Amino acid sequence: MGKTSAGNFFEDFSLGQVIRHATPRTITSGDVALYSALYGTRFAVQSADTFAQDIGYARAPVDDLLVFHVVFGKTVPDISLNAVANLGYAGGRFLAPVYPGDTLTAVSEVIGLRENSNGQSGVVYVRSTGFNQDGTEVLDYVRWVMVRKRDPKAPVLETHVPTLPAALAPDALGNAVPALDVENWRFELSGSPYRFSDYSIGERIDHVDGMTVEEAEHMVATRLYQNTAKVHFNQYTEGAGRFGRRLIYGGHVISIARALSFNGLANAFHVAGINGGRHVAPLFAGLTVFAWSEVLDAQEISGREDVGALRLRTIATKDQPCAGLPAKTGDDYDPSVILDLDYWVLIPR
Amino acid sequence: MGKTSAGNFFEDFSLGQVIRHATPRTITSGDVALYSALYGTRFAVQSADTFAQDIGYARAPVDDLLVFHVVFGKTVPDISLNAVANLGYAGGRFLAPVYPGDTLTAVSEVIGLRENSNGQSGVVYVRSTGFNQDGTEVLDYVRWVMVRKRDPKAPVLETHVPTLPAALAPDALGNAVPALDVENWRFELSGSPYRFSDYSIGERIDHVDGMTVEEAEHMVATRLYQNTAKVHFNQYTEGAGRFGRRLIYGGHVISIARALSFNGLANAFHVAGINGGRHVAPLFAGLTVFAWSEVLDAQEISGREDVGALRLRTIATKDQPCAGLPAKTGDDYDPSVILDLDYWVLIPR
Amino acid sequence: MGKTSAGNFFEDFSLGQVIRHATPRTITSGDVALYSALYGTRFAVQSADTFAQDIGYARAPVDDLLVFHVVFGKTVPDISLNAVANLGYAGGRFLAPVYPGDTLTAVSEVIGLRENSNGQSGVVYVRSTGFNQDGTEVLDYVRWVMVRKRDPKAPVLETHVPTLPAALAPDALGNAVPALDVENWRFELSGSPYRFSDYSIGERIDHVDGMTVEEAEHMVATRLYQNTAKVHFNQYTEGAGRFGRRLIYGGHVISIARALSFNGLANAFHVAGINGGRHVAPLFAGLTVFAWSEVLDAQEISGREDVGALRLRTIATKDQPCAGLPAKTGDDYDPSVILDLDYWVLIPR
Repeated sequence: MGKTSAGNFFEDFSLGQVIRHATPRTITSGDVALYSALYGTRFAVQSADTFAQDIGYARAPVDDLLVFHVVFGKTVPDISLNAVANLGYAGGRFLAPVYPGDTLTAVSEVIGLRENSNGQSGVVYVRSTGFNQDGTEVLDYVRWVMVRKRDPKAPVLETHVPTLPAALAPDALGNAVPALDVENWRFELSGSPYRFSDYSIGERIDHVDGMTVEEAEHMVATRLYQNTAKVHFNQYTEGAGRFGRRLIYGGHVISIARALSFNGLANAFHVAGINGGRHVAPLFAGLTVFAWSEVLDAQEISGREDVGALRLRTIATKDQPCAGLPAKTGDDYDPSVILDLDYWVLIPR
Repeated sequence: MGKTSAGNFFEDFSLGQVIRHATPRTITSGDVALYSALYGTRFAVQSADTFAQDIGYARAPVDDLLVFHVVFGKTVPDISLNAVANLGYAGGRFLAPVYPGDTLTAVSEVIGLRENSNGQSGVVYVRSTGFNQDGTEVLDYVRWVMVRKRDPKAPVLETHVPTLPAALAPDALGNAVPALDVENWRFELSGSPYRFSDYSIGERIDHVDGMTVEEAEHMVATRLYQNTAKVHFNQYTEGAGRFGRRLIYGGHVISIARALSFNGLANAFHVAGINGGRHVAPLFAGLTVFAWSEVLDAQEISGREDVGALRLRTIATKDQPCAGLPAKTGDDYDPSVILDLDYWVLIPR
Repeated sequence: MGKTSAGNFFEDFSLGQVIRHATPRTITSGDVALYSALYGTRFAVQSADTFAQDIGYARAPVDDLLVFHVVFGKTVPDISLNAVANLGYAGGRFLAPVYPGDTLTAVSEVIGLRENSNGQSGVVYVRSTGFNQDGTEVLDYVRWVMVRKRDPKAPVLETHVPTLPAALAPDALGNAVPALDVENWRFELSGSPYRFSDYSIGERIDHVDGMTVEEAEHMVATRLYQNTAKVHFNQYTEGAGRFGRRLIYGGHVISIARALSFNGLANAFHVAGINGGRHVAPLFAGLTVFAWSEVLDAQEISGREDVGALRLRTIATKDQPCAGLPAKTGDDYDPSVILDLDYWVLIPR
């Protein structure tokens, strides 16, 4: 098995380690079309070159979450092939626009390590950064993941739990968005009249619509991102596993929830930052995803008159419409909840 | 729920009302590739830049029905989100070629309204027009759809049933097709030796092949068109509904039938007009679509020596091969019939 | 039914017959994206323009097997619509790089005919050649296929069984690969440190990962290639047939196996020749494909310092992990084996 990669185990990681990931990927209009057809996104900026150019983009930028998934996918063979669980995200920033034709690469730095008390596994914290062909950072984010040890007896030399921000500061947002001519934003074309000032902190929005997921769809999506996590693809193995079936990539759920959120947030055109996120429960094919959002914060960005930032908490459920805004009771999530995501979006002022 | 669109109900429409629809969409070669893979179309003009350029196109144009579905999809959130049934089409004209890179928008005008006698719903007639980024009309068509009332007691102020053409006149056809150098049409590459003069009125063609439809496919297609009609996507709701399962977008059936019709109509490269169409019965995943066509008319077009027009009636069935040309007995359709479409195609003379 | 093609039967073929196939096809970045998402390929050369350009390509070339499938698909309506079985391949050569924007056409020559003793069918040998828009040959290969006779009593005038090479000579390989600047090959980006000299004849590699196949995926793939073989698409007919379900296109299995082989052969960036191949057993949706490879030979190519050639035998199985390297016992294949492919790949020296 010498030439086959079995991925890294917990004891293979060291603090400060920098891993340059394979495989570079040129994002094309083909990837964009497929992403659009997988989720049915309707945000005008990403859908139409004309709309994007009218407000100041060079052309329609690639959907932020497609960029995220492609960068994330590159990290999987090195970081999480032997993961037990993907535990969380923090400090995700979109730093430059990505256009079709750009080529993405990814690098991760190990910023934290903590062995679990059972000695069977440990938590690895990495900051992963995506670059375009010019070496410009387009995205960085921290994730932490529980990774199995190859050998439970392997000594663990280092322990460090990094301090992570609870949320990005508003002024850290917006680097991926050029200065916009908001007067050219045509609200009849974008699908909603509501702008920054129309949203208030504490406002809750049921996104109403539901989307059922099929095996062929989530596998096509996950392969589009060159994400190789075995649990998504291999029914032979997973059929004998804990759930008896393939798990759906958590990022697929994020993209479904984002697409559903158009109904209520049509002008929130840009995911500017990911403060935190938790995949509360697994999703399986045949189930239907619903979502609702709460406005956690609304902030202006220093030096920008064009856009404001809404901090959203979006909750996605399976087989549970969200009119009742299902979330947590005490520490316990409603059993329908699969995703609890805290992120910033930008919206015209 | 103030920011979420619930769509328009019957009493929300007024005669002469003009609705500019979201979301503009740039059609790319990615959309074209996905369309091709969803239906397996093989018409040479749309498949190959070389073939298209040899006869006078700038490059391979986007499939007419992809244009139709994208324009149609834009109208759904405003026109038919609360539809009970999509009743019919008339007067559909393809007015300019669409190429990858073009951006489509859509506008609808309400041209007819008629409340149903039960007071629960009414029929809305709209003429929808698709435009490219230059403001050029690329498509217009009339459809009428039965829409629920929000409030059965809401008064209905207007009633008007528009007069619609039974069929487009031949001279109204062909605006989306440049003057062609038919002498450069290579029949060995297009897949058939038959041209305009080889077809005769009354001729019937069984297209032989069958295509089974899967849930993942029709949802990917319908999202590609940014069509948000809930019945196609939400198994949680539809599972408790009338049919117990998701309905397949009627336009998906039209595209399957069109692709199947290649076998017998390989040179009928352009859908030039849609005279009328009826989705006779719903289609569900797992069923197999077959199709046959009758030549209803064959007409030259004034001033064009390059192409002639065939008026076709194409009938699509589910789980019923079409060797027996199933259609109607008296007023009753054969139970296998799902689509009865009356349209014009252009074919080299 | 005169206008519908029923395909050729055995007695329709004649030695030396040349058939120019429909439909020309421009390969776009949309096709490439879809191919990538169907198989999850991660070879850096095909994935990233930057990586390809760094080593001497004009840009990322189209995956060799996508080219193969598109050329193969064109031959189906003329060669194998009435096939009982696709028996084998030989002498497949990739002769020029294909880039997005290139248009492919295909021509086949009948090079062998042999009626079966039962008089019901016969074997047709064709050499099929793919061309780009400049008339440059991009691929040729021989395949032979058992085709039904329309009329068992039809006389068979010709019998000829061509002599086929057991394997391509190494010096026949590499025409589709420009002279490479291997010093610019970044092994950290390509996903593996192993180059030509790291592989030894007789070495066996279990590719570990498994990929479950769904109906929607193999149909989307096969339509992408405009392959019209009925057994892949028509559940109504196939449900009543020998297997009770649709068969998966054998080429889909080849592409899955190739994508799985990345784990162990990440730098084997180019399929340079197909020596032979056998679809040992059919694959059906819902089953999981695994693969392993043996290095049959390792050869330098005259005049090339940049790349060497590995002759591989890759075996794919269904619902059987390949740690035990399942293959043949005597003349009998392990019942899990679905593909036995003998081919050359190029890899940096």
